[in-house]
Amino acid sequence: MKYHKIPDEAIRRLPFYFRGLLTLSEQGRKNISSRDLADLLGFSHWQIRKDLSYFGSFGTPGRGYDIEKLIRQIRRILKLNVVRKAALVGVGNLGLAVLRYPGFRAYGFEIAAAFDNDPAKIGRKIGDITVEDVSRFRALKQRGIDFGIITVPCAAAQQTFDALAGAGVKGILSFSPCQKTGSEKVKVITIDIAMDLVRLPYYTPANRKRPKSGEQY
Amino acid sequence: MKYHKIPDEAIRRLPFYFRGLLTLSEQGRKNISSRDLADLLGFSHWQIRKDLSYFGSFGTPGRGYDIEKLIRQIRRILKLNVVRKAALVGVGNLGLAVLRYPGFRAYGFEIAAAFDNDPAKIGRKIGDITVEDVSRFRALKQRGIDFGIITVPCAAAQQTFDALAGAGVKGILSFSPCQKTGSEKVKVITIDIAMDLVRLPYYTPANRKRPKSGEQY
Repeated sequence: MKYHKIPDEAIRRLPFYFRGLLTLSEQGRKNISSRDLADLLGFSHWQIRKDLSYFGSFGTPGRGYDIEKLIRQIRRILKLNVVRKAALVGVGNLGLAVLRYPGFRAYGFEIAAAFDNDPAKIGRKIGDITVEDVSRFRALKQRGIDFGIITVPCAAAQQTFDALAGAGVKGILSFSPCQKTGSEKVKVITIDIAMDLVRLPYYTPANRKRPKSGEQY
Repeated sequence: MKYHKIPDEAIRRLPFYFRGLLTLSEQGRKNISSRDLADLLGFSHWQIRKDLSYFGSFGTPGRGYDIEKLIRQIRRILKLNVVRKAALVGVGNLGLAVLRYPGFRAYGFEIAAAFDNDPAKIGRKIGDITVEDVSRFRALKQRGIDFGIITVPCAAAQQTFDALAGAGVKGILSFSPCQKTGSEKVKVITIDIAMDLVRLPYYTPANRKRPKSGEQY
């Protein structure tokens, strides 16, 4: 099977499996069936099995998955078996919120640097991190920083993207839909919170009814 | 077909189709084939056709989709054909960033109120919104607010969830993984930005190679 045939949608789900397995491990669980894992995570068990099947065979019939082993395996698939360092650019409200987000380290991710172009922000300490001038991007590679997080306003997004790409980062998480969607060299994942918010009304009670036969939307 | 058989994953993708169609409409496009739409959005054309097929038949063979019509149809499916109002709770850095996010109105969503329990924040104006005391939740229903956005710290998340549910909201977008994942009455969608960040290393260049035959992860 060629690697590039693995659907992005499967890769999108792996972190959710990983997170669920980490929680089970913390609770002291050793094994779990794909059905129980599916119930816990809100996916279907065939989906979980299919997504994992792209990478090999996991689990033992009748015993399910060995939780610690599957954690190690997904960690390797996602290449999180070494610490990954990211630089955040744009220390506004969103940037501060992301810098203070406690949820990355469990996955081996560390925000190792923060940048802004506002002299009033440069030098400010946020936790362990001192905000640096964006002109210091060049040094990212030497510091082992391979990833960027863009939290700048729309108007500065493309420029920030180009500067991060120029500094050699391999992947960018962007909260701005205002830059290119990536290139051969740099993978970009864009978070648009509107895409999540607008799904909510669909689930309001009236929609739980069965539509009339043949009803068209 | 029973409504509840429609996979959540299909509903998750509809807003992305919707966003792409809105952009095409702004550009003056009238029609688009499912293949071109797929290329534009980064999904497969069969995925788009399958997702839409849950709700009826769309598009004309040879001519593709009528963009304006499909926008209206997806708007109805997602129940965005009336303005939806949300209340945001927790006016910290993240809350401020969400309040200032310009991307909701295009989808018929409006953040109509903001709440905090910090007396220093209550009364503060952010754009058109004046921050209110959380004790005023009761009035949400009379104000036509059916949705909540939780941007409070972890320790306050469950309490906020309960208060919003008690005030009768039907759906909650939460940036905290620290509350219940929903109930019969209230749909919860949780955004965990770690889930997006940790996918990035997978896409770094070494992973574009073909793995050795039979290689296990």
